[in-house]
Amino acid sequence: MRNFKIAVEYDGTDYFGWQRQKDNRKNPTIQHEVEKAFFSVFHKKAAVTASGRTDTGVHALGQCASFRVDTKIPAFNILRAVNTCLPEDIVVTEVKEVPLLFNARFNAKKKWYRYTIINRKIPSAVQRDFMFHCPYRLDVKLMRKAGRIIKGRHDFSTVIPCGDGDKIRKIYKIGVTKEKDFLCIDIIGNGFLYKMARRIVGILLDAGRGKIGLDDVKRLMSGKKISQEIQIAPAKGLCLMKVYY
Amino acid sequence: MRNFKIAVEYDGTDYFGWQRQKDNRKNPTIQHEVEKAFFSVFHKKAAVTASGRTDTGVHALGQCASFRVDTKIPAFNILRAVNTCLPEDIVVTEVKEVPLLFNARFNAKKKWYRYTIINRKIPSAVQRDFMFHCPYRLDVKLMRKAGRIIKGRHDFSTVIPCGDGDKIRKIYKIGVTKEKDFLCIDIIGNGFLYKMARRIVGILLDAGRGKIGLDDVKRLMSGKKISQEIQIAPAKGLCLMKVYY
Repeated sequence: MRNFKIAVEYDGTDYFGWQRQKDNRKNPTIQHEVEKAFFSVFHKKAAVTASGRTDTGVHALGQCASFRVDTKIPAFNILRAVNTCLPEDIVVTEVKEVPLLFNARFNAKKKWYRYTIINRKIPSAVQRDFMFHCPYRLDVKLMRKAGRIIKGRHDFSTVIPCGDGDKIRKIYKIGVTKEKDFLCIDIIGNGFLYKMARRIVGILLDAGRGKIGLDDVKRLMSGKKISQEIQIAPAKGLCLMKVYY
Repeated sequence: MRNFKIAVEYDGTDYFGWQRQKDNRKNPTIQHEVEKAFFSVFHKKAAVTASGRTDTGVHALGQCASFRVDTKIPAFNILRAVNTCLPEDIVVTEVKEVPLLFNARFNAKKKWYRYTIINRKIPSAVQRDFMFHCPYRLDVKLMRKAGRIIKGRHDFSTVIPCGDGDKIRKIYKIGVTKEKDFLCIDIIGNGFLYKMARRIVGILLDAGRGKIGLDDVKRLMSGKKISQEIQIAPAKGLCLMKVYY
């Protein structure tokens, strides 16, 4: 038995997210496509474990996953073969043999998400599936200040009310960069709860629009409730850039 | 009668280029969609003249066009209205009233095209419709040198054998930039003949791969033939960035 780590790039537009679902025809998923492609390569099942799920419509340039399989095919040949079996909106960019104990989910140390916004009156035609269109004026300085409040180790229980368990996560970096009409929000954290990246972006957008104040962001980050509802930024603007091990 | 200049952004993937064709259902074009949308706004026909055609599959961030129409609607309201009548892969980003004599085709002074290449073994999943995948090693320095030979005023008769008429054009700039696996070729010229931008990119790619030498590029630019056939780079990597007036 050998263990492989893979890097996967995908355009999530036409998929119901990473995680395999019951009805693969009705709800195509990236995991199903990847596992189907590896089945064609190995002629046996290989269950692929990703660093984490991505939601419907979320993209990835650097999703990572791992799987064990009994094969003699060299890693480089697996890379070439698997890409001939995948649809054009999914590519495996790396295949690497790793120690048997490596697990793409449990060994992930950090993740980098990028959220892209087109901030002008008119939406984008060319990048419409990869950007969220925000027609309101956004104050980038306020967004950066909100980001600095969210950075650090926090209990996200108020921000992410659904689900149980430990909701303490550490955010290493929130960067907001603007070039012409395009706004990029880079978030690096040690782990992301359900829709957490998109909720953080929602907070930054609401702060940038003046819908909430920096005091509200501080309240949220200290576990207190605020009167406004926090928006969840749409999936198509989000891309999993890299998983750090 | 008033005259308007518009800027148009489009994802050319699903279109047979800019120029209206006979069968609009079978061969949808950007011009047809734009004219149809303006018909919905004005309830009368407005023939739209672009700065020039773009081919099947070529994109634009800054195509320009002009049209005359007898209307009292303010330019800003035209902008808002026309975008509600367009499919999501075409947006009008600007509508501006201009003097009656302005013509988007004849008054165009310069055009800026950008060609994007993903230069690695594996193609791109996320940007597959907007980049050409080149798996061969490209020597960026050689490509820049080839670009410097093409820059300037030249007779492109040997490079573009089809069509009649004056084939002298001036290239103001050819820039080759590389960031990670992505290569951008920016070309600014006073006019572009049939598939000229893609033929210039073809020359740069062949020079970068070592398929032709810099001497061959010099021969081509002085109107002499070379033994190798020059490739035309695929349409999907090309984007009309801006038209200068």
